[in-house]
Amino acid sequence: MAPFLSKRDLNFQLFEVLSSADLPTRARFAGQSRADYEDILGLAYTVAERHFLPHAREADLNEPHVEGGKVRLVPGAQQAVKAFREAGFLSAHHDEELGGLQLPWVIMQAVMAHFQAANISTSGYPFLTIGNANLQREFASAEQQQKYMLPMLEGRWFGTMALSEPQAGSGLADITTSATPLGDGTYSVRGSKMWISGGEHELSENIVHLVLARVKGAPAGVKGISLFIVPRYRVNPDGSPGESNNVVLAGLNHKMGYRGTTNTLLNFGEGGDSIGELVGEAGRGLAYMFHMMNEARIGVGMGAVMLGYAGYLASLEYARERRQGRPATDRNPESQPVPIIGHADVRRLLLRQKTFVEGGLALGLYASSLVDDLTTGPEDRRSDTGLLLDLLTPIVKSWPSKYSQEALSDAIQVLGGAGYTRDYPVEQLYRDNRLNPIHEGTEGIQGNDLLGRKLTQAGGRGLEVLLGQIQADLAASEGLEGVSEIRAALTTALAQNGKAIHTILSKAPELGPDLFLANANSALEMLGHTVIGWMWLRQANAAVRALTNARASDTDFYRGKLHAARFFAVYELPKVKAHADLLAAADRTTFDMQEEWF
Amino acid sequence: MAPFLSKRDLNFQLFEVLSSADLPTRARFAGQSRADYEDILGLAYTVAERHFLPHAREADLNEPHVEGGKVRLVPGAQQAVKAFREAGFLSAHHDEELGGLQLPWVIMQAVMAHFQAANISTSGYPFLTIGNANLQREFASAEQQQKYMLPMLEGRWFGTMALSEPQAGSGLADITTSATPLGDGTYSVRGSKMWISGGEHELSENIVHLVLARVKGAPAGVKGISLFIVPRYRVNPDGSPGESNNVVLAGLNHKMGYRGTTNTLLNFGEGGDSIGELVGEAGRGLAYMFHMMNEARIGVGMGAVMLGYAGYLASLEYARERRQGRPATDRNPESQPVPIIGHADVRRLLLRQKTFVEGGLALGLYASSLVDDLTTGPEDRRSDTGLLLDLLTPIVKSWPSKYSQEALSDAIQVLGGAGYTRDYPVEQLYRDNRLNPIHEGTEGIQGNDLLGRKLTQAGGRGLEVLLGQIQADLAASEGLEGVSEIRAALTTALAQNGKAIHTILSKAPELGPDLFLANANSALEMLGHTVIGWMWLRQANAAVRALTNARASDTDFYRGKLHAARFFAVYELPKVKAHADLLAAADRTTFDMQEEWF
Repeated sequence: MAPFLSKRDLNFQLFEVLSSADLPTRARFAGQSRADYEDILGLAYTVAERHFLPHAREADLNEPHVEGGKVRLVPGAQQAVKAFREAGFLSAHHDEELGGLQLPWVIMQAVMAHFQAANISTSGYPFLTIGNANLQREFASAEQQQKYMLPMLEGRWFGTMALSEPQAGSGLADITTSATPLGDGTYSVRGSKMWISGGEHELSENIVHLVLARVKGAPAGVKGISLFIVPRYRVNPDGSPGESNNVVLAGLNHKMGYRGTTNTLLNFGEGGDSIGELVGEAGRGLAYMFHMMNEARIGVGMGAVMLGYAGYLASLEYARERRQGRPATDRNPESQPVPIIGHADVRRLLLRQKTFVEGGLALGLYASSLVDDLTTGPEDRRSDTGLLLDLLTPIVKSWPSKYSQEALSDAIQVLGGAGYTRDYPVEQLYRDNRLNPIHEGTEGIQGNDLLGRKLTQAGGRGLEVLLGQIQADLAASEGLEGVSEIRAALTTALAQNGKAIHTILSKAPELGPDLFLANANSALEMLGHTVIGWMWLRQANAAVRALTNARASDTDFYRGKLHAARFFAVYELPKVKAHADLLAAADRTTFDMQEEWF
Repeated sequence: MAPFLSKRDLNFQLFEVLSSADLPTRARFAGQSRADYEDILGLAYTVAERHFLPHAREADLNEPHVEGGKVRLVPGAQQAVKAFREAGFLSAHHDEELGGLQLPWVIMQAVMAHFQAANISTSGYPFLTIGNANLQREFASAEQQQKYMLPMLEGRWFGTMALSEPQAGSGLADITTSATPLGDGTYSVRGSKMWISGGEHELSENIVHLVLARVKGAPAGVKGISLFIVPRYRVNPDGSPGESNNVVLAGLNHKMGYRGTTNTLLNFGEGGDSIGELVGEAGRGLAYMFHMMNEARIGVGMGAVMLGYAGYLASLEYARERRQGRPATDRNPESQPVPIIGHADVRRLLLRQKTFVEGGLALGLYASSLVDDLTTGPEDRRSDTGLLLDLLTPIVKSWPSKYSQEALSDAIQVLGGAGYTRDYPVEQLYRDNRLNPIHEGTEGIQGNDLLGRKLTQAGGRGLEVLLGQIQADLAASEGLEGVSEIRAALTTALAQNGKAIHTILSKAPELGPDLFLANANSALEMLGHTVIGWMWLRQANAAVRALTNARASDTDFYRGKLHAARFFAVYELPKVKAHADLLAAADRTTFDMQEEWF
């Protein structure tokens, strides 16, 4: 069976492309070492392989279902989250005084990557819990943290994010769930929440829902939205879970993939009060959620990367073993068929996958390293770091979601008919990943966010910072052998980006906001491919440097990196131009299309 | 519920873009009329809607399984094939003396399109039967036709194509199934056949397998392959099915989609002789199969088109009904959210789908009309028609297979989370269509076929004919209002094609066959998009002509065609250049990649 993750590449990304080994020079990580990081990654591999991977297919074939009034999952899920908890991963990035290891976020993300690759569905339960706890850490009161967050760090309670409603998915401004003050500082929360992952299960003693709702009388739109903690079971004075809080499971959603993660419609306040506590200030609910959005969106992007990566590794193994056909030069029908990796078109499918998933991994970890820099990097650069991360986030979320899907389609194609069956993992990975361009903000939302907000935020400073970083890496690569194609293609793409962005921004006033945004998707595609091209330049730079003194056993790995960079330069970066042209032209085609013409 | 097929567009394609109403001027179709064609299409719609559509999801959720030694399908499948048979569709294109209607193939293909759109899985059983019978009509002896083909035209027996083996899928040259002469003119066929759709079921009294096998002592490679008729049940002297012919079901394949079509591993000659009859001459088996390949590949392409089209219609309906968000110019949170079709990015997703599926439909029907021209068109042009059809076939098969998948992904995206659930049809259509780039020759096979064979066949005459047709349509569009973008973009794309093809062909001798073919996929993409651009020019021409005298109720339809042509010109045709550049450069990247670098 193919490995589900490449340890070699993860090490390369963390310690050769990024400088994660230097993190212990920062106060928060003092005393840690690269060896510590490698140990914890090794532990993650073991736990993922032993406890998450084995029931990945079983969880797909046996969706969560209600039995005796309880949501039932496959038994492996319970054992897996237990192993995850016991390994300490739920609190590993938290303060030592909370039982954590103060692990850098980039290492934490690399830890989590193992579980996403092995079994994205089961990993959903602890990961939602981690995200929920991170939000509480930032915005909940000390009392709330004590009451709700600590049991989550210990893995006794799990968490969800309850934003969407049946009538309000992408349009959160229109949520109608209400919160009525009960007079004792708590609220009665009432309404329906849709698409709530991990919304009900028996994996934990309690479930802590973070719920967006409107306090009675609050204004319409986003300004009237507040954030509440609403537990499944009310909390006894001793901190133990008590009676039901009237959060009722109204239905399970039946999905194409990601089937092991129960996804629910929940009715709050059905048959009695669902008592909730306000987090922070009223009216700031969406702002709190969005503060955590960079992290959540990096998480989705990384999940997509790891699904694509698992598919790449599976198809690579298959291509090395499956014999079929001969080179065109071999006319002897009695010769043995060659492994299909011997065919250039199969290598094309593998190279495409390699550039998509390794490029995506580089970006996901780079963005995670920026999350660390925001709090532990040089103080005078934190503001720029924040703007850069804001700018990159829509790309980190959407690019791997889209291109891992293409990679997984290629993986299926390498396996042919076999890839279309449940005898191999790739068809499931393909179904699982198709969720990623939808949740945590659709591709349309990401495009609007990039062009309508992030490119102009702070006078365009985010883009300036990005271009500065890319130029620095271009400068560092000058004269290096084997990077000329990626250097040249990236330089061309940068010029196309610059011209297109300058043009569309200068036309913005005359276009008006709707026409201005009509080609936002092209902005996302254009800058997305360019940023991944940059990630390939960074990897190529690291590979060239390493090749000089590489052990023989490492040489192939680095040559593969250089050749993949060349592939991305030659096959992918030329696609930037068509998007740049559309954007610069402020093309009216989608804007002008009339509903009745369809 | 959204319609599963657009009658309006099918009529436009057949009678306004193509000249199907003129077919009755040909002797074989004498006495027929456009009204007849519309009647039979109306019948197809009714049968598809009443008997195929209702169990499409049920068949997906309840895969064929073995029960009591029999393969069980959902009950709807049996009723559906009965209705299909009773409507006379199994023999509709055959000679009147065989009980047929002598229907033109383009009309037959349009009839079949209804069933592909409504329920691709159940349509597989009669369609395999039609293909099998067509091959017998061409190559089987009169006696064999009497014995095997006639019961198939009557729908009492069904058929399969048994080509692949576990060790030989794309590489048919390496099949090992053997045929030993029994001395009475028949053969004992022995071996395993993989991926056999419709390989076992109880829908018909008998199943007629067309099996590729090697007569004992035949040479290795394709020259040793012969074609045999091997029935599931041996045939009694009175023509009725008799005792078992020892074709044993060794396993059912469990697929991601297309689940209602049982797909099997069959062992021939297990527990006794599987007696087969040789079709035509020994050693010509693959040639016979390939003679039918154009038809079979058009069938796959049309199936892909119709799946994509059904998804487009479903997402269009959803986009008109679902309200979410507001235009960027509307800052009032108390205003009503707009139907999501009001957002430019949703219109982009719908326009992409529209251009992909309507462009694919135009191509599939155009190719089908060439099948008619081959036997009933002007005799002096049949040779050119054959070369044109040969050239187009890899595109007709692979372009819709790939781009309907993109369209279906867009359909899911329009529906968002809902599209990812089984409450809507799009996720199933997406899973179903993913088979199409694999079966009947993978995308890799189609690329090699196009660049390595079809572009050079007969001294490149096929390409000359194609370019002549395109130039004629460009000339016809000169000065027409509303077609300037598609004219200009197609003209540019044609120049890029011409240069790339000329360059790669002139370099071929120095490159050698393997490097020459290394970018075959780019040839397929380049020419594929160009041909679809041509199809949009043809539709735009027809729309402009029709607009002059159009009834008010038709105006929107034609304006939609013109706007979609513009979309394809502006958003899609610019993608041709990157592929043309790769091809012209005879890029070595995939060729040079070493296995150990992955």
